[in-house]
Amino acid sequence: EAPKSSYNPGITEFVGTAIGDTIGLVIANVDHNLHGFMKIDPKYKSIGIIGARTGAGPHIMAADEAVKATNTEIISIELPRDTKGGAGHGCLILFGAEDVSDARRAVEVSLKELDRTFGDVYGNNAGHIELQYTARASYACNKAWGAPVGKAFGLIVGAPAAIGVVIADAAVKSANVDIVTYASPSTTSYTNEAILFISGDSGAVRQAVVAARDLGIRLLEALGQEPAPSSTTPYI
Amino acid sequence: EAPKSSYNPGITEFVGTAIGDTIGLVIANVDHNLHGFMKIDPKYKSIGIIGARTGAGPHIMAADEAVKATNTEIISIELPRDTKGGAGHGCLILFGAEDVSDARRAVEVSLKELDRTFGDVYGNNAGHIELQYTARASYACNKAWGAPVGKAFGLIVGAPAAIGVVIADAAVKSANVDIVTYASPSTTSYTNEAILFISGDSGAVRQAVVAARDLGIRLLEALGQEPAPSSTTPYI
Amino acid sequence: EAPKSSYNPGITEFVGTAIGDTIGLVIANVDHNLHGFMKIDPKYKSIGIIGARTGAGPHIMAADEAVKATNTEIISIELPRDTKGGAGHGCLILFGAEDVSDARRAVEVSLKELDRTFGDVYGNNAGHIELQYTARASYACNKAWGAPVGKAFGLIVGAPAAIGVVIADAAVKSANVDIVTYASPSTTSYTNEAILFISGDSGAVRQAVVAARDLGIRLLEALGQEPAPSSTTPYI
Repeated sequence: EAPKSSYNPGITEFVGTAIGDTIGLVIANVDHNLHGFMKIDPKYKSIGIIGARTGAGPHIMAADEAVKATNTEIISIELPRDTKGGAGHGCLILFGAEDVSDARRAVEVSLKELDRTFGDVYGNNAGHIELQYTARASYACNKAWGAPVGKAFGLIVGAPAAIGVVIADAAVKSANVDIVTYASPSTTSYTNEAILFISGDSGAVRQAVVAARDLGIRLLEALGQEPAPSSTTPYI
Repeated sequence: EAPKSSYNPGITEFVGTAIGDTIGLVIANVDHNLHGFMKIDPKYKSIGIIGARTGAGPHIMAADEAVKATNTEIISIELPRDTKGGAGHGCLILFGAEDVSDARRAVEVSLKELDRTFGDVYGNNAGHIELQYTARASYACNKAWGAPVGKAFGLIVGAPAAIGVVIADAAVKSANVDIVTYASPSTTSYTNEAILFISGDSGAVRQAVVAARDLGIRLLEALGQEPAPSSTTPYI
Repeated sequence: EAPKSSYNPGITEFVGTAIGDTIGLVIANVDHNLHGFMKIDPKYKSIGIIGARTGAGPHIMAADEAVKATNTEIISIELPRDTKGGAGHGCLILFGAEDVSDARRAVEVSLKELDRTFGDVYGNNAGHIELQYTARASYACNKAWGAPVGKAFGLIVGAPAAIGVVIADAAVKSANVDIVTYASPSTTSYTNEAILFISGDSGAVRQAVVAARDLGIRLLEALGQEPAPSSTTPYI
């Protein structure tokens, strides 16, 4: 839904905005030459675009719901170093579709999901932690993080990275889950995050994520000496 | 021209400052050992230095004028992830010269050009767009971006990167130009920018850049819900 | 020493906090599976963790004292692009130990050293310079920067990187020192820093560092048009 303000652009490509300085856009027919330089499969003449200054995790989870709900595929997910001076990423996610209405629908679904997927992002002056959980990972989680499609999947992020290491350890000790991978500053876009990706039984994944969250909030509050509230409303 | 203040350093190496937290410096005789570690061609005993926290594009365009106007060459152009919490780059540009007066002159020309080359940088709380245009690209544009020397050249940047994708598409649809290359977060210093480099007929390049600018400003204002003014005075 | 506040976490893993948004943590028994994904040598069942949003140099110097004083080894040193919108790094340093009390002790020593090692970090709105000096480098300086163990070692950082280039040159001209290496934005985590690492006779290294400091402060003040004070109290 487009914002109701004097800056509503009234432009074909504009779909809407959301939390995290997120913009949703669509191109009905990508220019043929640009298509090649962007290395997009020629079959996707329409692309949906989600871009944000703050937060890759919430957007990838939102895109995951969008690919489940629409006739689109994830073309690419890129992770700039951003968050406007914060410790994490921004994002650029491209959906491919043969029809512009599908591309637009994927962007709309993503924008709508963001309020939820920012729910377990907690932050204060010192940093942030982020938790994500889905009972059934789809192609965005797979493309970005190697999540096994169709299985429960969880994401555990701590920034500064030291907090991420400790809550990753707490998570895997709290429940019987499979580690998909572990990421740290030298294997991301130099964000100040340590990140754990887990998969397995849905109850176990959820339990591990919750254990990480409880410890992470306390550590972030100890470092920042102030509360570390949710960005919106917790969903996990 | 050195600033007139209590912090005027009165140091041989200091040339001046400019917009973007830019400093211009010169070293008459680079230390022989350091020279090797910096991998500078031994023939350049003098170097001119332009460094900034904000903005690589304006500085590379300014340096392009400086190499046209002086007896210097571009040694290197490096693009840190900076802009002081913004979405883009800072820069470190080295000019090589056999004579210190040439190196100093290149720095002076660059500093002087910056007020102009920041003219089509537009920003607000949500991000920025940047446009550059030259009727005749020289060796700085070539070194940094592969611009064909002697031909018209344009630069189109949007941040967050989603905006860059859409204005790149608008640019190439608006005029018959050649794409030199396309860059996105994973191929830059992890900036949150999508960037298009175009070449061709000068009228067409200018027209494409202007089309991107008009759309980019509107999208940035839609995202930030506030005006996105020029940093100085538009020149294109 | 844990902070005395309502956010004292009372958690086993928490050791303390320090300047630079630094947190010190310990894990007595790293989860076996996580251990593998983190690529930690199995012999270190306990790890000490130092993480920070601002400053890698002060933390590596502090860790260098910690490895001298304890029965631990440096497992890894990672350098995110951070400083909360500033021009430099944050850090993630892991100490390995066979016994948790050793890991904890290394973290405690590091936290305690930070007030000193931030002493020659000078900053203002335009950037920062950082100087470090030790009469006898140990394994943290070696791991992070290739410093010859047991010899005097100095670190010279300037941001924006242009200032780093000029003070590096001034340093090596002021005393007879060996260059260990030179780093610039394209060889770091895209920080806006030029960095010189020097080794040699302790008097010469100290003299070179002091020469860089004197010039660096003046250049930073010329660029920022305001004082560039020490973060704590100069120690060199």
